[in-house]
Amino acid sequence: MGKRPGDAYVRIVRPFEDAFHRGSEEGGLVATERTVLDRRGPTAPLRRLRTWLIGRPIRSEREEHERLTKVKGLAIFSSDNISSSAYGPEEIMRVLALAGAGALSLTLPLAGLITIMLAIVTLSYRQTIKAYPKGASSYIVASDNLGSGAGILAAAALLIGYVVTVAVSVSAGVAAMTSIIPGIYGERVLISVGLVLLIMLGNLRGIRESGTIFMVPTYAYIVVMLAIVGYGVVRSVLGDVEPFVAPAGWAAVEAGGQALGLFLVLRAFSQGAVALTGVEAISDGVPAFKPPEWKNARTTLTWAAVVFATLFVGIAYLVTTIRIIPDPSEEQTVLSLLVRHLTGDGFVLVVAQVATALILVLAANTSFADFPRLSSFLARDDFLPRQFAYRGERLAFTTGIVALSLMAIGLLIGFEASVSGLIPLYTLGVFIAFTLSQGGMLVRWWRRREPGWRMGLAINGLGALTTLVVALVVGSSNFLQGSWLVIVLVPILMLLLLAIRGHYRDLDAALAVERVPEAGEVAPKPIVIVPIARLDRPALQAIAFANSISSEAVAVHVTNDPDTADAIRERWPDWARSTELVVVESPYRALIGPLLAYMDALQRQAPDRPILVVLAEFVPRHWWENLLHNQTALRLKLRLFSRRNTIVADVPYHPPRA
Amino acid sequence: MGKRPGDAYVRIVRPFEDAFHRGSEEGGLVATERTVLDRRGPTAPLRRLRTWLIGRPIRSEREEHERLTKVKGLAIFSSDNISSSAYGPEEIMRVLALAGAGALSLTLPLAGLITIMLAIVTLSYRQTIKAYPKGASSYIVASDNLGSGAGILAAAALLIGYVVTVAVSVSAGVAAMTSIIPGIYGERVLISVGLVLLIMLGNLRGIRESGTIFMVPTYAYIVVMLAIVGYGVVRSVLGDVEPFVAPAGWAAVEAGGQALGLFLVLRAFSQGAVALTGVEAISDGVPAFKPPEWKNARTTLTWAAVVFATLFVGIAYLVTTIRIIPDPSEEQTVLSLLVRHLTGDGFVLVVAQVATALILVLAANTSFADFPRLSSFLARDDFLPRQFAYRGERLAFTTGIVALSLMAIGLLIGFEASVSGLIPLYTLGVFIAFTLSQGGMLVRWWRRREPGWRMGLAINGLGALTTLVVALVVGSSNFLQGSWLVIVLVPILMLLLLAIRGHYRDLDAALAVERVPEAGEVAPKPIVIVPIARLDRPALQAIAFANSISSEAVAVHVTNDPDTADAIRERWPDWARSTELVVVESPYRALIGPLLAYMDALQRQAPDRPILVVLAEFVPRHWWENLLHNQTALRLKLRLFSRRNTIVADVPYHPPRA
Repeated sequence: MGKRPGDAYVRIVRPFEDAFHRGSEEGGLVATERTVLDRRGPTAPLRRLRTWLIGRPIRSEREEHERLTKVKGLAIFSSDNISSSAYGPEEIMRVLALAGAGALSLTLPLAGLITIMLAIVTLSYRQTIKAYPKGASSYIVASDNLGSGAGILAAAALLIGYVVTVAVSVSAGVAAMTSIIPGIYGERVLISVGLVLLIMLGNLRGIRESGTIFMVPTYAYIVVMLAIVGYGVVRSVLGDVEPFVAPAGWAAVEAGGQALGLFLVLRAFSQGAVALTGVEAISDGVPAFKPPEWKNARTTLTWAAVVFATLFVGIAYLVTTIRIIPDPSEEQTVLSLLVRHLTGDGFVLVVAQVATALILVLAANTSFADFPRLSSFLARDDFLPRQFAYRGERLAFTTGIVALSLMAIGLLIGFEASVSGLIPLYTLGVFIAFTLSQGGMLVRWWRRREPGWRMGLAINGLGALTTLVVALVVGSSNFLQGSWLVIVLVPILMLLLLAIRGHYRDLDAALAVERVPEAGEVAPKPIVIVPIARLDRPALQAIAFANSISSEAVAVHVTNDPDTADAIRERWPDWARSTELVVVESPYRALIGPLLAYMDALQRQAPDRPILVVLAEFVPRHWWENLLHNQTALRLKLRLFSRRNTIVADVPYHPPRA
Repeated sequence: MGKRPGDAYVRIVRPFEDAFHRGSEEGGLVATERTVLDRRGPTAPLRRLRTWLIGRPIRSEREEHERLTKVKGLAIFSSDNISSSAYGPEEIMRVLALAGAGALSLTLPLAGLITIMLAIVTLSYRQTIKAYPKGASSYIVASDNLGSGAGILAAAALLIGYVVTVAVSVSAGVAAMTSIIPGIYGERVLISVGLVLLIMLGNLRGIRESGTIFMVPTYAYIVVMLAIVGYGVVRSVLGDVEPFVAPAGWAAVEAGGQALGLFLVLRAFSQGAVALTGVEAISDGVPAFKPPEWKNARTTLTWAAVVFATLFVGIAYLVTTIRIIPDPSEEQTVLSLLVRHLTGDGFVLVVAQVATALILVLAANTSFADFPRLSSFLARDDFLPRQFAYRGERLAFTTGIVALSLMAIGLLIGFEASVSGLIPLYTLGVFIAFTLSQGGMLVRWWRRREPGWRMGLAINGLGALTTLVVALVVGSSNFLQGSWLVIVLVPILMLLLLAIRGHYRDLDAALAVERVPEAGEVAPKPIVIVPIARLDRPALQAIAFANSISSEAVAVHVTNDPDTADAIRERWPDWARSTELVVVESPYRALIGPLLAYMDALQRQAPDRPILVVLAEFVPRHWWENLLHNQTALRLKLRLFSRRNTIVADVPYHPPRA
């Protein structure tokens, strides 16, 4: 006690071998990659499979090297936003079409309105990003300025939104494929699930690699679509395009069935507002950019908004002037009808559809960047289990990525991968978060009154008002179509987050150490007992261990058969002469109950001393052999685990290798 | 070391409190009922439910008091045999009816033939019982005289036979009920399963109580049926009974479709031979009788055969002379048709059917007495897992009873509780066992040549020949109907039994202690390490325990966050001054890999010493809180369990009760 280690001792305790470096602190060890990769025994093949799938581990210090340029940032964080131009106009049209083909002329004005809103929100978020360069998630902005209640409301809304984003994007991507290959329509759920798993794997490989994977489709879509829209607009202005003629089967659409009331227009607007949902992504991900983070993020946000607006308004203009009608069977997308109408059934159509399908599927990746980061923030603040804050071997938040994938797969199966079915779940959550974030900025400007605060206040105020109105419109007009589900789920999720934090807080209070132990204070030595079933090598090994740590270990043999008890008593003096043997006969044949009663009786003799139960355990060569062993040991361990003042030591006996 | 305990020490080690008595051996303890019944903590309600369901535990010494009188023995072991009179004739008739109503006149001759066989087998088994008063199971007789191969062949055949017995008896009992309440025919599988569970529960309560439960139905059936058959025979001899007139819908049966060849007659005989299957039961159960066991068992066997033969031949005589035809829909049994024909649709019919239903259902109980006993013999000889040899709290073989119930339920569901579907599975196994048992007796007489051996040899020889012929007839004539399944399953089960014994034998050899340890020999002291995640009460408790058993315990903190490492380093000198702290930084963020690598490095410094890993574990108040904790500890324990020379001590921390 109180020893200061000499050199030899330090060599034993801190073995500086190949597996470790010396740390910067005196006497610390730093693990090398070998400690993670070198694995023997039954799990080694799993280790190799894992390394093959997601790559070798990455050191924590490399995090900065894994940061994103603006070009990659646009690909990772804006694919969600930009890709909504592919289905946004269609979703507006599908609602308007309920009032007949004539109502479709409202598509362009609604698209224009949504674009103006996007401009407001983008300006507003540029300010948020500057104010929160370490991550401008709505959760952080709302917690910081409006209190933690608003924060977790935003968090719950966003978490749900991210899950739906994955399901919607993948469904829309698969819909773009089925437009050109109708034969796979029946398998769309299976294909969607497979794609989510692929994206999950890509993300488990780490953020920079996923940037590379996802760059190509985003830029391919931008280039191809800008070209097609430009070509179409030029031809349309020149009066060179025939109006669209719907196939005979679509007559029901042309006629419509409902009156074109305000409610229908609001619903159409709500469906289109989905296009704004991508804005939060970049703000959430500010720390993932190369420094200066906030400047790069802001610029990327502006680029994304401009590209999206151009495509969105361009497509809306074209479908309105050409008078395209949505396919009632959902087998062909409006975008594919448009491209086919402009360029025919040829090469361009295939290129456009492939690019669309890819960007849509990969738009899901935005959520894979944001959901795990948001859950790591939440876990850091004790609102989620701590695994969510743990970066895996590739610096990715493994738990969040896997959780997101599983929930999105559940949604895809539940909604049969239908875009129109999923969208009502989508928009509301995101707009609640928008409103809280900008409301938070409003309070911040007001409190701080930094230079330029009046302008900032005006911009964020306008943004907050706009998104609040949209949230109300979306929540009420889509209530029956699905936003009721979000209104139910958000409070449940909030309660869950609060319950988890309550648990951790209670626990921290209960486990905190209250007083520094005295210098001479030593814990009482444990009473050591070794239950033995028979006299074999595992039992002798356990007794030897018990004797090596205690001079008064007791072997206990509980038996329902007096004959075996006599046999053990007879051989005992030879085998374990220095160890006391207690034989407990159990005329009711139970083994665990009498052992526990014996421990209780011992405990009453020495209430302060813990009881250490040393269990001999046989480790079988094959897992199935466990069926023939260890049943009693397992039940005993479960019972002992809940007994106070009890320590269980497992002494595994490995049979010699054959 | 080498101490001789003084009085105080013995009081501590052998606390003679309420929970224990002094044992007969010096210093032994004998557990009282309290050790089994007194239970606190989360499992206490389960304990109370169990005591309510199956009763308080019974002491081992009471086994003899639980023995059976001849009257109870007949009820327990002969309900199978006697109850087959209810369906035996019908099963013969159903096969004969394939050749038309005319062929049914063969029912009586076949029944007579089967009765003669029964007489031979009964005589033969009376000798077996006398020779094996401790249990004349075919498994024991065949192992003893023909070698262990023949023994496990008999055992496998019997085990399968017992499972089928349960399914057949319960199905037949439910069929007797549906004859008078056709409305429940659709629910017969559910009802059958429920009945099996009830019988299981009754048997878990112990053998004597089940004797009492089962006495009433057996004797009710015997009395009621003897009366009805006597009444019918008298009326028939007086010429007072009209012939049976089949309803119009049964015309197909009257005509038949197949020719009445030898094969059909053999199949009819095979179906009827099911009536003999109950004979083995009493021989198996000899030790369950009050002393003198073998005399009581023999007398019971003879009674059972006489009662069965009277009913079987009587019923066959009546259905033949009255010319009853089996109901092609299986909704009414032949026996119910007979009783209705003799006594009308009234009170007697209901009484007869209820008695039949009860004895048939309870006939399953014969297997519940025999299967667990046979499996305990097999487990004692290492052919089955040892749990099968363990008598539960009520002296019943719990594992065998539960296993039998589950397998029988599987059969009932698989065969939709159809008697005719199950019977082909049934007879073959039992007759294989019969043949081996009597063949074994043959060899025994020949080897021993005790007084009277010639007579004994003749009787057992005739018995063996008879049952061998039946086994061949049954196996071949029913091959396609289901005995192929038995022919496939028996060898598979034999291989399983042999594999289990092989495993136990290998293990015993591997674990046997080869040499007596030397007097001064002491195991090397373990290297003690305490992995800690943070400085809280569980961690301090684990460190205190480690220090109480070792003067050089080392605390290890593996961290992916240099900041928390610094915080721990700073507080360490105050909190755990005498314990060495090693901080392992993990730049790849893995926690388990670096810890194992550290242990490997330590091990190389001291290859002979085991490593004791002391784990602080938090015991949550509610089970679901485990989802928020202990994930890493669980994974670590699994990995450590497979590491050689490693001992894991769990130090659970229970938060103070609120």
